Amino acid sequence: MNYQFKDMEKSLFDEKSVESLLKKRISIENVTEKHFGTEVVVAGFVKRIKNLGDNLKFLILSDHSGEIQLTFKSDIYKNIKVINELAPYTFIVAKGDATRGYSKKGREVVVKDFYVLGEVSAQPIPIEIEHIETSLDKRLDYRWIDLRNPKHRFPLVLLSEFTRYCREFFYKNDFVEIFSPKLIGMATESGAEVFTVPYFGKTAYLAQSPQFYKQMAICAGFEKVFEIAPVFRANPSFTTRHDTEFTSLDFEIGYVSSHYDVMSWEEKMLNYAFRRLKEKWEEKVRNNFNQEINLPKKIPKIKMEEVYEIVDKKNIKEDGDITPEGEREVSEYIKKTYGNEFAFVIDFPYKARPFYHMKGNPMKDGTETTKSFDLLYRGIEITTGAQREHRYKVLVNQAKEKGLNIENLRYYLEFFKYGAPPMGGLGLSPTRVIMALTGAKNVREVTYLPRDPKRLFP
Amino acid sequence: MNYQFKDMEKSLFDEKSVESLLKKRISIENVTEKHFGTEVVVAGFVKRIKNLGDNLKFLILSDHSGEIQLTFKSDIYKNIKVINELAPYTFIVAKGDATRGYSKKGREVVVKDFYVLGEVSAQPIPIEIEHIETSLDKRLDYRWIDLRNPKHRFPLVLLSEFTRYCREFFYKNDFVEIFSPKLIGMATESGAEVFTVPYFGKTAYLAQSPQFYKQMAICAGFEKVFEIAPVFRANPSFTTRHDTEFTSLDFEIGYVSSHYDVMSWEEKMLNYAFRRLKEKWEEKVRNNFNQEINLPKKIPKIKMEEVYEIVDKKNIKEDGDITPEGEREVSEYIKKTYGNEFAFVIDFPYKARPFYHMKGNPMKDGTETTKSFDLLYRGIEITTGAQREHRYKVLVNQAKEKGLNIENLRYYLEFFKYGAPPMGGLGLSPTRVIMALTGAKNVREVTYLPRDPKRLFP
Repeated sequence: MNYQFKDMEKSLFDEKSVESLLKKRISIENVTEKHFGTEVVVAGFVKRIKNLGDNLKFLILSDHSGEIQLTFKSDIYKNIKVINELAPYTFIVAKGDATRGYSKKGREVVVKDFYVLGEVSAQPIPIEIEHIETSLDKRLDYRWIDLRNPKHRFPLVLLSEFTRYCREFFYKNDFVEIFSPKLIGMATESGAEVFTVPYFGKTAYLAQSPQFYKQMAICAGFEKVFEIAPVFRANPSFTTRHDTEFTSLDFEIGYVSSHYDVMSWEEKMLNYAFRRLKEKWEEKVRNNFNQEINLPKKIPKIKMEEVYEIVDKKNIKEDGDITPEGEREVSEYIKKTYGNEFAFVIDFPYKARPFYHMKGNPMKDGTETTKSFDLLYRGIEITTGAQREHRYKVLVNQAKEKGLNIENLRYYLEFFKYGAPPMGGLGLSPTRVIMALTGAKNVREVTYLPRDPKRLFP
Repeated sequence: MNYQFKDMEKSLFDEKSVESLLKKRISIENVTEKHFGTEVVVAGFVKRIKNLGDNLKFLILSDHSGEIQLTFKSDIYKNIKVINELAPYTFIVAKGDATRGYSKKGREVVVKDFYVLGEVSAQPIPIEIEHIETSLDKRLDYRWIDLRNPKHRFPLVLLSEFTRYCREFFYKNDFVEIFSPKLIGMATESGAEVFTVPYFGKTAYLAQSPQFYKQMAICAGFEKVFEIAPVFRANPSFTTRHDTEFTSLDFEIGYVSSHYDVMSWEEKMLNYAFRRLKEKWEEKVRNNFNQEINLPKKIPKIKMEEVYEIVDKKNIKEDGDITPEGEREVSEYIKKTYGNEFAFVIDFPYKARPFYHMKGNPMKDGTETTKSFDLLYRGIEITTGAQREHRYKVLVNQAKEKGLNIENLRYYLEFFKYGAPPMGGLGLSPTRVIMALTGAKNVREVTYLPRDPKRLFP
């Protein structure tokens, strides 16, 4: 290593030593009983220093896997006074003998040698990572410090894990991942809330969803496709559930016989992913968030026209959809009636759905419906799905019925002009799943670097 | 199913029948000997019709998994004359008895009943999927038809498979996937070739790479992170290797002892992914592209200062990097010398690398170098990687040396102000890997919907 700490006065650095120590370094969680009495190398940042006089000092070291106590004794580490100069959050690497010691966690390292890897160049540290009253806004401003708190980092690990298990399910079932473009020549849906991008003298748009392109893949001869990728919504409002950019999990399947097939695939996917999450993370989720991981099992379905009889009238919107408060009511009802935290709300009115949803059987009062559904989990809408209208002429008619400009949709409509199979699919928000799973109050807590109308940094 | 084919004159539709048939449908590849003599349901698009008179007609049906012959005999399917009205590319579902038959592939379905799922609404079909002289441009214009040719679709399956196996490797080795924002408040690197986005009265930029945010994750206490996601480059030029948007595979690792650790991780990842690809796709890659899947094994490393002695002087750029032609020369040399299709070119001059690469030992002539590398595969650069400079003061100095505006980089530099561990990582282009693997002449052939300065559609 070519460390150039020339500008520092402390002589705690030695390139060759650091390089060779890092090659031997192990994760803190891997320091176990079998190491007691032998030499180990650990690295991480200084969380706390306890000064017990000139001859004994304790240092709590933290890495991605956990914490361990480093013990400095003046008879073993001569230069012990330099510990006083170490600022919290300094990254160090230390070599010493592992021992059971007297610390609560039952293991410590008696340090023989250590080096600074990355010093703290400014004081004070802008946020205290364990100060529970720090506002979410301030935590997000200094996210790279905030996430050094393992409890804040854990939801992001769960997010990675949840998408991982969904992927495993897709791969096992012969889904192909598509990588659809985010720079597009036409606004994906209504044209509202879409970001524009100056593009070599023309205008491009940022994709609000991969909807058109996952459907195109089915027209192109793929049978089952998925994508987990960013989508963009120029939504000027601030809610606890929306960002201007978020990760969307989408799949689309050809030759479906109805939207029930799509729901069946989602049910299988979620049971697989939740089972895998439960196996690995149940205890840690309980300890960190006081939440249980319950499998969706057989998810109850409730038709929108039945929902109208359950929810408070003020929670039904003009177009026949329900409000977030209405969604919470439905979730509670299903929980009480069937004991399930998940609920499919199906057969939404045509008025509340986009033009490309296939129409279904009308409600008793004659209201037009769609072969569509939402999935609620603990009161939060996590999915919107449907069978799509794949017949060119019907699709064009529906676009006209909705008052859309056919010319703007030309490229999308073309996909269906030369034959298309029946198809259906859905979009799911992985962050909303993790938000509900961990009981977070705001989707931004479980998003790495959330974006809203006021937030573009860091 | 609520099929509404009222606007069609042909009476080939029956909602209930279609719905119940699709529930029984199996993939064409799954029609095997064990089905002979029994009833099967298959679906797909009409590829070709062979008319052998009024009483016998053959139809080649194609789905994602293969092709099969449907045989229409007038004594079994009474309404046989309607076959004449079926346009190629029409999507249909058919029920009949599977039999060995007389077809070359050794299996066919003698049709008892069939329904149209999606008709062709316009003629002529704009491109012939099997016409080998269709230009790539025209193929891309009608990508949803072009990809009905399985040979054109296959590279996209390989792309999904390659990223799948890289992910498997990451998950097995405790990497966490991050989902970093693509809308950012500062241009990622030099500010050149970056797309701007009007953002609620301010300006946002589209991320050219997740570089800053994967490094931030390491500062935030993650140890190994990866991301496979779109990146954006406002590159006005047209080459066979560049798009304005492409999928980038990135990883970043904390506590590396040098860039050799990063190369070691990449070598392990590629050996894993190529082994898995080879197991599953070797034969099909050979048959379709006349290419072998060779494992990288131990990848030879060559220092840039040695490269200067090998390549033609005209292929060395002013900043000390080499041209694409130079990369081909190096690849050939390594292939000839070591028999390996992969080659790491290491220790690039500091002049040719960004400010955040860590400096290394100087060349014999004193030229400053970086702890950096590129990976070449079959003459194509597929990766750029390095150990990063993680020490705040050194990093600020290097940015100044490069003449960059510190204020523009403020948010990035902040990540290192409160301590950071040594780190290293890389970016890899999965489409370039598949381009080289399949011997494609243009990266756009192996991209689902490529984007260049003139292409935003479909």
